[in-house]
Amino acid sequence: MKKIIKNGTIVTASDTYVADVLVQDGKVAAIGKDLPSDGLEVIDAEGCYLFPGGVDPHTHLEMPFGGTVSRDDFETGTIAAAFGGTTTVIDFCLTDKGVPLKNSIETWHKKSKDKAVIDYSFHLMIGEINEDVLQEIPQVIEEEGITSFKVFMAYKNVLQADDETLYKTLVMAKEQGALVMVHAENGDVIDFLTKKALGEGKTDPIYHALTRPPELEGEATGRACLMAGLANSQLYVVHVTCREAVEKIAEARSKGYNVYGETCPQYLVLDQSEMERPDFEGAKYVWSPPLREKQHQEHLWNALKNGQLQALGSDQCSFDFEGQKDLGKEDFTKIPNGGPFIEDRFTVLFSEGVKKGRITLNQFVDIVSTRSAKLFGLFPEKGTIAVGSDADLVIFDPAVERTISVKNHHMAVDYNAFEGMRVTGEPVSVLSRGEFVIKDKQFVGELGKGKYVKRKRFNAVENKEMAALSKSR
Amino acid sequence: MKKIIKNGTIVTASDTYVADVLVQDGKVAAIGKDLPSDGLEVIDAEGCYLFPGGVDPHTHLEMPFGGTVSRDDFETGTIAAAFGGTTTVIDFCLTDKGVPLKNSIETWHKKSKDKAVIDYSFHLMIGEINEDVLQEIPQVIEEEGITSFKVFMAYKNVLQADDETLYKTLVMAKEQGALVMVHAENGDVIDFLTKKALGEGKTDPIYHALTRPPELEGEATGRACLMAGLANSQLYVVHVTCREAVEKIAEARSKGYNVYGETCPQYLVLDQSEMERPDFEGAKYVWSPPLREKQHQEHLWNALKNGQLQALGSDQCSFDFEGQKDLGKEDFTKIPNGGPFIEDRFTVLFSEGVKKGRITLNQFVDIVSTRSAKLFGLFPEKGTIAVGSDADLVIFDPAVERTISVKNHHMAVDYNAFEGMRVTGEPVSVLSRGEFVIKDKQFVGELGKGKYVKRKRFNAVENKEMAALSKSR
Amino acid sequence: MKKIIKNGTIVTASDTYVADVLVQDGKVAAIGKDLPSDGLEVIDAEGCYLFPGGVDPHTHLEMPFGGTVSRDDFETGTIAAAFGGTTTVIDFCLTDKGVPLKNSIETWHKKSKDKAVIDYSFHLMIGEINEDVLQEIPQVIEEEGITSFKVFMAYKNVLQADDETLYKTLVMAKEQGALVMVHAENGDVIDFLTKKALGEGKTDPIYHALTRPPELEGEATGRACLMAGLANSQLYVVHVTCREAVEKIAEARSKGYNVYGETCPQYLVLDQSEMERPDFEGAKYVWSPPLREKQHQEHLWNALKNGQLQALGSDQCSFDFEGQKDLGKEDFTKIPNGGPFIEDRFTVLFSEGVKKGRITLNQFVDIVSTRSAKLFGLFPEKGTIAVGSDADLVIFDPAVERTISVKNHHMAVDYNAFEGMRVTGEPVSVLSRGEFVIKDKQFVGELGKGKYVKRKRFNAVENKEMAALSKSR
Amino acid sequence: MKKIIKNGTIVTASDTYVADVLVQDGKVAAIGKDLPSDGLEVIDAEGCYLFPGGVDPHTHLEMPFGGTVSRDDFETGTIAAAFGGTTTVIDFCLTDKGVPLKNSIETWHKKSKDKAVIDYSFHLMIGEINEDVLQEIPQVIEEEGITSFKVFMAYKNVLQADDETLYKTLVMAKEQGALVMVHAENGDVIDFLTKKALGEGKTDPIYHALTRPPELEGEATGRACLMAGLANSQLYVVHVTCREAVEKIAEARSKGYNVYGETCPQYLVLDQSEMERPDFEGAKYVWSPPLREKQHQEHLWNALKNGQLQALGSDQCSFDFEGQKDLGKEDFTKIPNGGPFIEDRFTVLFSEGVKKGRITLNQFVDIVSTRSAKLFGLFPEKGTIAVGSDADLVIFDPAVERTISVKNHHMAVDYNAFEGMRVTGEPVSVLSRGEFVIKDKQFVGELGKGKYVKRKRFNAVENKEMAALSKSR
Ligand SMILES: [Zn+2]
Ligand SMILES: [Zn+2]
Ligand SMILES: [Zn+2]
Ligand SMILES: [Zn+2]
Ligand SMILES: [Zn+2]
Ligand SMILES: [Zn+2]
Ligand SMILES: [Zn+2]
Ligand SMILES: [Zn+2]
Repeated sequence: MKKIIKNGTIVTASDTYVADVLVQDGKVAAIGKDLPSDGLEVIDAEGCYLFPGGVDPHTHLEMPFGGTVSRDDFETGTIAAAFGGTTTVIDFCLTDKGVPLKNSIETWHKKSKDKAVIDYSFHLMIGEINEDVLQEIPQVIEEEGITSFKVFMAYKNVLQADDETLYKTLVMAKEQGALVMVHAENGDVIDFLTKKALGEGKTDPIYHALTRPPELEGEATGRACLMAGLANSQLYVVHVTCREAVEKIAEARSKGYNVYGETCPQYLVLDQSEMERPDFEGAKYVWSPPLREKQHQEHLWNALKNGQLQALGSDQCSFDFEGQKDLGKEDFTKIPNGGPFIEDRFTVLFSEGVKKGRITLNQFVDIVSTRSAKLFGLFPEKGTIAVGSDADLVIFDPAVERTISVKNHHMAVDYNAFEGMRVTGEPVSVLSRGEFVIKDKQFVGELGKGKYVKRKRFNAVENKEMAALSKSR
Repeated sequence: MKKIIKNGTIVTASDTYVADVLVQDGKVAAIGKDLPSDGLEVIDAEGCYLFPGGVDPHTHLEMPFGGTVSRDDFETGTIAAAFGGTTTVIDFCLTDKGVPLKNSIETWHKKSKDKAVIDYSFHLMIGEINEDVLQEIPQVIEEEGITSFKVFMAYKNVLQADDETLYKTLVMAKEQGALVMVHAENGDVIDFLTKKALGEGKTDPIYHALTRPPELEGEATGRACLMAGLANSQLYVVHVTCREAVEKIAEARSKGYNVYGETCPQYLVLDQSEMERPDFEGAKYVWSPPLREKQHQEHLWNALKNGQLQALGSDQCSFDFEGQKDLGKEDFTKIPNGGPFIEDRFTVLFSEGVKKGRITLNQFVDIVSTRSAKLFGLFPEKGTIAVGSDADLVIFDPAVERTISVKNHHMAVDYNAFEGMRVTGEPVSVLSRGEFVIKDKQFVGELGKGKYVKRKRFNAVENKEMAALSKSR
Repeated sequence: MKKIIKNGTIVTASDTYVADVLVQDGKVAAIGKDLPSDGLEVIDAEGCYLFPGGVDPHTHLEMPFGGTVSRDDFETGTIAAAFGGTTTVIDFCLTDKGVPLKNSIETWHKKSKDKAVIDYSFHLMIGEINEDVLQEIPQVIEEEGITSFKVFMAYKNVLQADDETLYKTLVMAKEQGALVMVHAENGDVIDFLTKKALGEGKTDPIYHALTRPPELEGEATGRACLMAGLANSQLYVVHVTCREAVEKIAEARSKGYNVYGETCPQYLVLDQSEMERPDFEGAKYVWSPPLREKQHQEHLWNALKNGQLQALGSDQCSFDFEGQKDLGKEDFTKIPNGGPFIEDRFTVLFSEGVKKGRITLNQFVDIVSTRSAKLFGLFPEKGTIAVGSDADLVIFDPAVERTISVKNHHMAVDYNAFEGMRVTGEPVSVLSRGEFVIKDKQFVGELGKGKYVKRKRFNAVENKEMAALSKSR
Repeated sequence: MKKIIKNGTIVTASDTYVADVLVQDGKVAAIGKDLPSDGLEVIDAEGCYLFPGGVDPHTHLEMPFGGTVSRDDFETGTIAAAFGGTTTVIDFCLTDKGVPLKNSIETWHKKSKDKAVIDYSFHLMIGEINEDVLQEIPQVIEEEGITSFKVFMAYKNVLQADDETLYKTLVMAKEQGALVMVHAENGDVIDFLTKKALGEGKTDPIYHALTRPPELEGEATGRACLMAGLANSQLYVVHVTCREAVEKIAEARSKGYNVYGETCPQYLVLDQSEMERPDFEGAKYVWSPPLREKQHQEHLWNALKNGQLQALGSDQCSFDFEGQKDLGKEDFTKIPNGGPFIEDRFTVLFSEGVKKGRITLNQFVDIVSTRSAKLFGLFPEKGTIAVGSDADLVIFDPAVERTISVKNHHMAVDYNAFEGMRVTGEPVSVLSRGEFVIKDKQFVGELGKGKYVKRKRFNAVENKEMAALSKSR
């Protein structure tokens, strides 16, 4: 079955041009001016951008946290993602100490298999590195195509790993061709500040921010970068929020270290004052790291512009305000951490980034799709519009103005953190491997149609090219 | 007339994939798998990379300097460029104080029109900014499509402009949509050190380096960046050679300043010790800024890798060793400054950069072609392989190993600064707007076939998209 | 004639202790517990600090500027200084291009000889460095004991020197054992911004600040430091006002460069908002560099605390609000630059620095007296309380609270820039070489009693010790 | 009993002058020119410097380590210190988890009481901070005058504390007026690298250095500084060895943090290549942090010069080459860590620092004596020559040239790490509280005459002055 998308303005991480795209067998088969369309399903994209589908490298769907479970699962989460222009998500698979990694992965497959409407993959969380884990990892990489592993430097006595674990993970990643992801905050000091605040009767949501100051994110980020460089390995710092952390990443990159940074839409447009909303509404804005003072936003935008940060994750981890967030009414440490961003990640970056002249159209595509696909071994199937790539496509109307709201969003959660925000641009139709998931702003997909994607090792494409070069000598 | 290039590995600044390219009317008309080729001229590119033609943003062809004229002109220079994989050059048009800019541009048109075998454009040198110049510039931009202006912070009493001139140029550029280029060395201190060295009888070529230490390049670079930021304008620092300058550019970019940096192949692979060659052979390596100590190379490579530097110019300005360089036999300040790099720029970056794993294939294309096309208003006609772009194409065999030498190069000059260097990779065929200039390593082009290209204003493409977005609201 | 000062708390740059001080022949003869006082003039200092007299390294008394002359001369200026706790001033001797330095120095001797009530010395301003100047300087150093030379990087077409002049001065200073002082602002860009502002009808005092942004001070400071390091010379940056400049000085010092920085009391406690006072009162706060935004103050205090800045000058250059400042009523560039600080420098640093816990008592003495004495060749005669030093002493009551005001100050000028500021501490009595100038807060000195002091070369004391060490081998 | 020291060149952290010093009741009673000396013991110091006795803030005498005990105890150690010009040492009192601090302190009193020939005090090592410890500390401060507490970030599973412990200690120190000392290396990564090296059969002494790279010291230093700033507390980084650590301290100080750094003579003059000596002699140079590559020395000297580092400790912890160091013959991790520096600390700094022009005489005194006395609550009794201070004095002949050697040193250990080094200068006589310990280079002291000194709280002197100021209002 073939389709042709006519006259869209195709945008990739490098190029912007008007042409037709021929889709065949779920792939981009040809791109050209006035391609013949006889007998094909013709889709008119004139006046619209044709973007590669977004790649969201950071979601937590149906994830247990603090005695509850994140509200959006692989059904509502991937439907919302598709509405928002995202066609691939990489979700974090939690593990338990002492339990084979395989079992945890199986749990995650069960959560997702019959629900996902777009393609998806998993990162794996690493709690400790012992002999069992080390032995199992090659298999996980080979059989499951899981080539990224996350380590937490915070959440003391829960998820937090010590520096030895992080370093061992970096060394393993170097050997196996994997990418280490790190949640970088100094959990020890946060733990102290948190207990101190509670001891002083400071229980409101804002204390979540005040007990996790940006200095502690900067510190941990710098420490992780240093270790990555020393181990000559590769590191991806998730959810960078502040000037302090950006500076550490920039410094490491200046030394030639293979260090990458992700930020999230919430840090680009919201600030810490949201957490002071009355009637406990500040709890809607509780996640980690916390929102920062407004001045940090400029540093994040500059870092996206000049390439010190490369990717945008949603860090989707939604909890209802009623029934979930209110677990922390008397104690901010009991507020489930996270928020709903999977749907608006794409458009918020377009509207606040491209529309306001902070980044170019090509940078937008790179940040929202291409770079994540490359870093996490999904490229070139995902992340671009090129002959041979998957036809994961977004027909995007840049002219629409609309208001983000819980009233019209497609996530299951009972509020939207961007409530009332005016944005420009909206996906009109979204295709996953050549099939419509969203058509004229209606969901036309099918549960379970999304496929699990085994990912390539870190830099596998580059290494293959290099190997080819070497062979040819 | 149509051509089809089959099965090459197409590489752009973002993508790498195997496909066929249909060329029609000098443009890329379609890209696809197994495009129909009946009745077309078919070129087999299997096993080869298909790169967009190189864009060399920095050449000095037939340029007067110190009483002589650079050896390669628009004939030998552009032929050599084509052999090397470059299909567009932007040459520096010199101006004289008090003479209308128009006249100088006319002189440059005369030098080039009947000689160039590939497309070309001009930057304009700014010696002073007075009312006459300010009045003429809008016309120069509008009629000639010259949208970049160079200011010298060195060459005291010759080309050097003061800070006021540089600042005025930055302000003008902001208003007119132009890009300011700067040669950043502190000419005042160099002048002092030079006179001091000569006064002490230090006349050998190595003193050219010792009287222009990297600190002075760093200082001037930082000063220019600061001014660009203060004027909220845009700046392109030519021929960055050292850690000190890279750090200043990185710092400016971290602040969100629109500052860009270019390095040259010679600084990436040669070092200051070349200038100590006996028998006055050091003079072959005299240009400004000078070669640096070896340790700086790592900083330049890191800066290309992490995006602190964006472009690669050749700074081609060749002088024969015999008859030209030897003007300075008794006095290093009389050695004509410059060297022959237009031909080897492309392959040296490939061989030392991609082949040695310092940059990716996509970064190679970005640095050698795409970014310069974008910065200087040539994109998307130049700088990429996309539907609608000019068919400026390089079929590149990555497997060939060869030795760079004056014996087989195509420049007119009597030596090659990379003499004896082993490189991997070679352009097999090169097309300019769909026509072969080089075919199977033979020159098949025609003098005067290269066209003068009027360039767009700085960020014109981005601005047009932005305007479209605004209109659509 | 002998005096004994009993039971004061003696404070030096290093020590704090209670003891008696015996003064003989204008010098400190002994320090001890319960020194015998029979037959001596006994002064009780119990409960007071006994400080070495302040050394003000930066004054402009009776200085011509923009068609007028600074209001306080060597009479009113030095009397006010004495009231404020300062016993030595170093004034800037202006020179004219083409006129022998000797003549300018003679002019300055005439201004001061019969008026000064405390000791004084001169710095020399360097407008250009030509053969004549270079020949005259050794004599100036030898005969006049003038061992510091000031270069201006601002005031285009008036005082501004180019980088070559600054560099030559640094080289000369290295050879001769002198210290180069620099007014560091980028005069070229300021000139452009100033003309632009005036062209747009922006004539109010605040535009004096807005056309001289801190970035331009940072730039020039960094440039001067770089040159000092390259020349392996010594540099003293006068009136540092902002974070940008502090950072450059700190960076240079980290590299081991002999670079020093001075700030002034006005930058520590006043900010740019003063310049927006209505009714042209902003003009009272017009000097160069201008006052900065409040946030810079913290950086200056930190720099004093951690030693990145070393000295405090008053930059005394007073002009009456009526009759002088109002020359610029229609055009801020015509406002005479400068303000009255010679009297309050000492107490403002004590009150805001020591009293508020920002610096220690010993640091106070170092900053207000010792370090300037050491840097400018006045030590150990001036700048400390030690056996053999001049008995330039301040008996300071740290308990007094008072309000600074034109109503009770002793300067001739018609306003006080610190008007209304509450301070803690006041000099009770002040001795110059053992003689009272101020006694119980009354002036008891005599015009012309202050002596011109020939200063030692840079590091002369250290060099003498070193020479002694070498000889002893 | 009174003594008079005549005509020495008295040097303090601020002053240098020739005078007589009257000593009475163990204190400096008067300083003056030609003080009357009738009936007094007269000591001629003409041609010599008279320095305040050195304060060594970092010794490990008779300390258990890895199954053995450091060779020099309070007898040989303090005698050697005195020979070298040091009159006060502060030794580290080890504690054990679960044992009352009091007990550990008692152990240390027993080691020292009957042996020390000069005054001494103790720091306390903090292994963990629990409620018991927190309760005991105020008593320790009050009764024992122990006002400094050391935390280790390295020695995993032995001494290493986690970040929470360090942070709690900083918070406690802020509240109690104490100073936190930190051994800053990342123990986790070192542990990994060490095991890896041993696993690869790398057992030679040099691997001690290679498994503890400077990056890990820089990281831990930055982390500790960050925590100190966040806690608004005070931190002293012991034994700083490298550029990376200096930069972190400088950065923290630039922000106004109360952070101080100590280096040691061994890092200033020895480098990592010593550890590659054949026949296991490299083991003589094994301590932590290890010696670094030579280039780091320049950064340490610059940091002493510009005040980024303030103090010099010996980190004396000597082990015999035969019988102790050789425990690690088959495994570098078994080599007892430490070396003998207590005797040569003073002269090495004089000879390499003052004599070679890197620091001034006054800086020498500040670094070797005054600053440590001030930071650790010993001032003004110790650390200066001023009326009222203890007569801890060194008559130092700056002309002597000699060779450091085990053959003539006074430590008990069987080698000297500076063996064969030529130095200039030597203490002739040393007085402790007015009594000779060394007279004409002979030991004339008495075991047990040294007194335990209770130290004041951090900034107690400054705080007292401040309080006085406040009261006086
Ligand atoms: Zn996280
Ligand atoms: Zn997350
Ligand atoms: Zn140039
Ligand atoms: Zn050039
Ligand atoms: Zn000035
Ligand atoms: Zn001034
Ligand atoms: Zn230690
Ligand atoms: Zn130690």
